[in-house]
Amino acid sequence: MRIDVITLCPRIIIAAMEEGILKQAVKKGILELFVHQLRDYAHDKHKTVDDRPYGGGPGMVLKCEPIFEAIESIGYSKDKDTVIFPSPSGIKFSQQLAKDLSKCSRLIFICGQYEGVDQRVIDHLVNLEIGIGDYILSNGTIGALVIIDSVVRLIPGVLGNLDSIVNESFEDFLLEGPQYTRPRKFRDWEVPEILLSGNHKQILLWRKRLSEEKTEKLRKDLWEARKKESGYEPHRKN
Amino acid sequence: MRIDVITLCPRIIIAAMEEGILKQAVKKGILELFVHQLRDYAHDKHKTVDDRPYGGGPGMVLKCEPIFEAIESIGYSKDKDTVIFPSPSGIKFSQQLAKDLSKCSRLIFICGQYEGVDQRVIDHLVNLEIGIGDYILSNGTIGALVIIDSVVRLIPGVLGNLDSIVNESFEDFLLEGPQYTRPRKFRDWEVPEILLSGNHKQILLWRKRLSEEKTEKLRKDLWEARKKESGYEPHRKN
Repeated sequence: MRIDVITLCPRIIIAAMEEGILKQAVKKGILELFVHQLRDYAHDKHKTVDDRPYGGGPGMVLKCEPIFEAIESIGYSKDKDTVIFPSPSGIKFSQQLAKDLSKCSRLIFICGQYEGVDQRVIDHLVNLEIGIGDYILSNGTIGALVIIDSVVRLIPGVLGNLDSIVNESFEDFLLEGPQYTRPRKFRDWEVPEILLSGNHKQILLWRKRLSEEKTEKLRKDLWEARKKESGYEPHRKN
Repeated sequence: MRIDVITLCPRIIIAAMEEGILKQAVKKGILELFVHQLRDYAHDKHKTVDDRPYGGGPGMVLKCEPIFEAIESIGYSKDKDTVIFPSPSGIKFSQQLAKDLSKCSRLIFICGQYEGVDQRVIDHLVNLEIGIGDYILSNGTIGALVIIDSVVRLIPGVLGNLDSIVNESFEDFLLEGPQYTRPRKFRDWEVPEILLSGNHKQILLWRKRLSEEKTEKLRKDLWEARKKESGYEPHRKN
């Protein structure tokens, strides 16, 4: 996969490339990641990339010209590439959307900040306006990093252990239950007996029950979605 | 506010401090932000911070000892500080939670990666397990950055223009509508006439209508929440 990020804050993406899975994906040759400073495509003395909104209102809006010039100069194909604008006003990001995007050959991110971006960029360049959650960030680059990380880890070959991907949260509308590792006793707190029992079937059932209890307690919405999806009757202690 | 981040990937947070609002908040003296490398608190030859899960299963689990040592060595107060573990298994992050957290005097983030963290860390150190969305990240540090950015921008004095905060998405269950800036005509595409009219009342109504149409189209869930909250009958073209 090739990913291009057009941003006013390149360092955040560059730092993420120096650590963790993005570094590994680049090293393995699975990912090419390019970061472009939007300001390099502004040509006035002050390198202006934004201006006041027509019709009034607070904040500044990113201008068309530098963004169109940036995307056209990096060899963009309207038919083949997927152009993403991270924004609280987009469709909701999800694990399913991450999976779909992990099959694309090229993603291009246009990262806004300030009040937003000229709508003509959205209308004529962007394929997907994606919101990572119902909260506001100062900077679309952080939203882009979230999307990139969750997409790249799903590309085959990036993570060593595919089991990790299959068993994780949201795959079946359940939050993950508790995990324990050595030492068996830390301060006054011991690892639950059952995990030391060697009875794999019982361990599986115990883990499932705790996952269900946690999901029902913390995330009623997922819990209801799970019931709806499967007509499933939860396994219960009492 | 003081924020401490305990992580295996410090560069991502450090880079974010060099750009955008985190840089400004630190410069204005509103924010103190400290990043701690978890590995510095592991004392064996290999600086081991993780181990295999009890009871079997894929992936690695972060161990108790380095995390407890890290948090205790940075002067942590169980009564005063809020300790956050970003995780897909947490409560859902929202603009309201960001607002609540922006009133805290100190936040401490423990950032996991791999399969998770020993449950004794959650049970005995963590106040809030927060999920930024229904998708999986390779690294809790990215989740921490999302939470930090959205919280810090709400601290009074960090953003110049408070209007920007009041008018933004989610404040009234509406996505933001389109914005335009100069030039008035870019390629074949003109700015909508109404924005040039100077009729502020009409502009306000136009913007509201487009916000409503976008919300209803892209985010049925917000749209329903808005109707429920206000018994509000949307303003319509037809």
